[in-house]
Amino acid sequence: MRIKKFQEILNKEKIDAAILFRGNPNINYFSQNPDIGSSSLVIPKDKDPFFISKKLRFENLDNEAKIKGINLDGKLGDFINKGFYGKTIGLDKLNLSSLIFDKFKKEWKVRIVDVSKILSELRVVKSGDEIDKISKNCKILSETFREVLDNFDFKTEREVEVALSNISKEKGGDFCFKPIVASGVNSATPHYMANSSKLKKGFCIIDFGVKYEGYCSDMTRTIFIGKPKKEHLEAYNKVLEAHNLAAEITKPEMKAEALHKRILEYFGKSKDYFIHNLGHGVGIEIHELPSLALESKDILKKNSCFTIEPGLYFPKKFGIRIEELYLLKNKVIPLTDYSKELKIL
Amino acid sequence: MRIKKFQEILNKEKIDAAILFRGNPNINYFSQNPDIGSSSLVIPKDKDPFFISKKLRFENLDNEAKIKGINLDGKLGDFINKGFYGKTIGLDKLNLSSLIFDKFKKEWKVRIVDVSKILSELRVVKSGDEIDKISKNCKILSETFREVLDNFDFKTEREVEVALSNISKEKGGDFCFKPIVASGVNSATPHYMANSSKLKKGFCIIDFGVKYEGYCSDMTRTIFIGKPKKEHLEAYNKVLEAHNLAAEITKPEMKAEALHKRILEYFGKSKDYFIHNLGHGVGIEIHELPSLALESKDILKKNSCFTIEPGLYFPKKFGIRIEELYLLKNKVIPLTDYSKELKIL
Repeated sequence: MRIKKFQEILNKEKIDAAILFRGNPNINYFSQNPDIGSSSLVIPKDKDPFFISKKLRFENLDNEAKIKGINLDGKLGDFINKGFYGKTIGLDKLNLSSLIFDKFKKEWKVRIVDVSKILSELRVVKSGDEIDKISKNCKILSETFREVLDNFDFKTEREVEVALSNISKEKGGDFCFKPIVASGVNSATPHYMANSSKLKKGFCIIDFGVKYEGYCSDMTRTIFIGKPKKEHLEAYNKVLEAHNLAAEITKPEMKAEALHKRILEYFGKSKDYFIHNLGHGVGIEIHELPSLALESKDILKKNSCFTIEPGLYFPKKFGIRIEELYLLKNKVIPLTDYSKELKIL
Repeated sequence: MRIKKFQEILNKEKIDAAILFRGNPNINYFSQNPDIGSSSLVIPKDKDPFFISKKLRFENLDNEAKIKGINLDGKLGDFINKGFYGKTIGLDKLNLSSLIFDKFKKEWKVRIVDVSKILSELRVVKSGDEIDKISKNCKILSETFREVLDNFDFKTEREVEVALSNISKEKGGDFCFKPIVASGVNSATPHYMANSSKLKKGFCIIDFGVKYEGYCSDMTRTIFIGKPKKEHLEAYNKVLEAHNLAAEITKPEMKAEALHKRILEYFGKSKDYFIHNLGHGVGIEIHELPSLALESKDILKKNSCFTIEPGLYFPKKFGIRIEELYLLKNKVIPLTDYSKELKIL
């Protein structure tokens, strides 16, 4: 279905074949095999797609889409130049190194066109299977947060990180991105990654996600260690209300940009302390379309999955972020079930 | 020192400044901060380098090189076009998406040159600090292998993977790449990644590495579950002897290609079952220069770190790989201390 839809577009755009090189996330999308080895994927506009590889084996080619492997006995460029794949070849320039692209451009005597936009847009609306995988993933994620936060007996940020990783791994979750555990003043840095401090009193941002059957998840909760003051509670509630407002007003066919704008409006004078995007799509990759950001041109689509993650970050003081992964139906449905109320430890 | 050396080359090549975008591994190389956030790095040819960021905070900018952060109040392209960074800008095309490069090429009214080769080559020879970090990493790795293989009580490939990850994480190791645990016939696939089978009798390839203080490690041992037959022992010894031969003959200033060739010669009639490269450099990234491969142009340098990892893979039967990470002095010095003799469980 995924492949067929892509082939229809290739036909319409008069692209004879698209070639995706090993490591390209769209290979996982089409094959639905998260453990595909070192092969590249050729998708002709009107024939069955196939993997190509020079010498490495294809034994791990099991894939839902039943794509077969062909051993290339020679250089890819020679096959291209012999016209095996047609005269117009689509490459995914977003996921291709500029250096490698230059090499192809020089060596290949065919017309090369970029198919990255087609691919990114194709992945926005999730199928039932994909939603199942992401939902199962989010179950692992909720359970992991529950075990870690409900038995919180840690002395360092690193210990929290290790617990998140170990527990989720035992539940079947794979590495997705380096977790953020930012306590005290570290929470004022949205992308704090060191996780090297003792746990300090105050807010602690915990941002974590896992990979499961090739799909990602992403979730943030901010807890409080010690006794919060009024300013802490007010700031937390401001972020929580912003989150709930964003979730409430999100509708299919809405402009992503408008949603971000509305939350800036809500933050009012605090808006300068909201210093990242409101959210991002999640799927095969941890960051994909749609982008919930000021400069975004994306329209929110039914059956897309994306985060809503407003935050406030007060320099040298503290930060708060509340992030939930949602599925958009007629309105958004949260995919984890862990409470967003402030947990005070 | 690293930055100074790079600046000397920029001067020589008449490149006014190099810009490395967030996520670029060379940022970690220059800053020696593995946890740098979402900033990009500008290295002018004759001024102090600085991080740029639009709105995200710089609180996690601690770095050995004492590089400061500058908040860009506007678009990078405007600063470029105002000539702030000079008339010739170096970009690392290897680590830049072809799509993004096109955008810069279109918007920037400066000369753009590729500095990827300079950067890759700069990283080959490791400093004392870097060797320390990689050595400490390999200690974590050896201990993890020891704990997992000396108390081998697992039923599935996944359980071995989880144990490797959990134990190394508790010792301070971070995620580096998805471990390979390939038992029985799965071992015939060099890049088997599913780790989804029950542990089968026969060879089991365990390929694992961790990240520590920003540096990677990589190591493979092949164990045997059950009672090996003569053909198994012969094949294992063949790979072990190939490994030892490669380690023995490796000398500084040798052609990497010649080393691979010599091992193919050694394998003789079995050479068609050795289906990947002999080795690769390891450092900030898990795969970097030198490439120990047939088509490689690299010369092996003193104080470089690389793997030697011959293997034999018999389709639908079994595979063996023995990989060690070495530091090249006058000869190679192994960086892990786990035995390469066949472990029979």
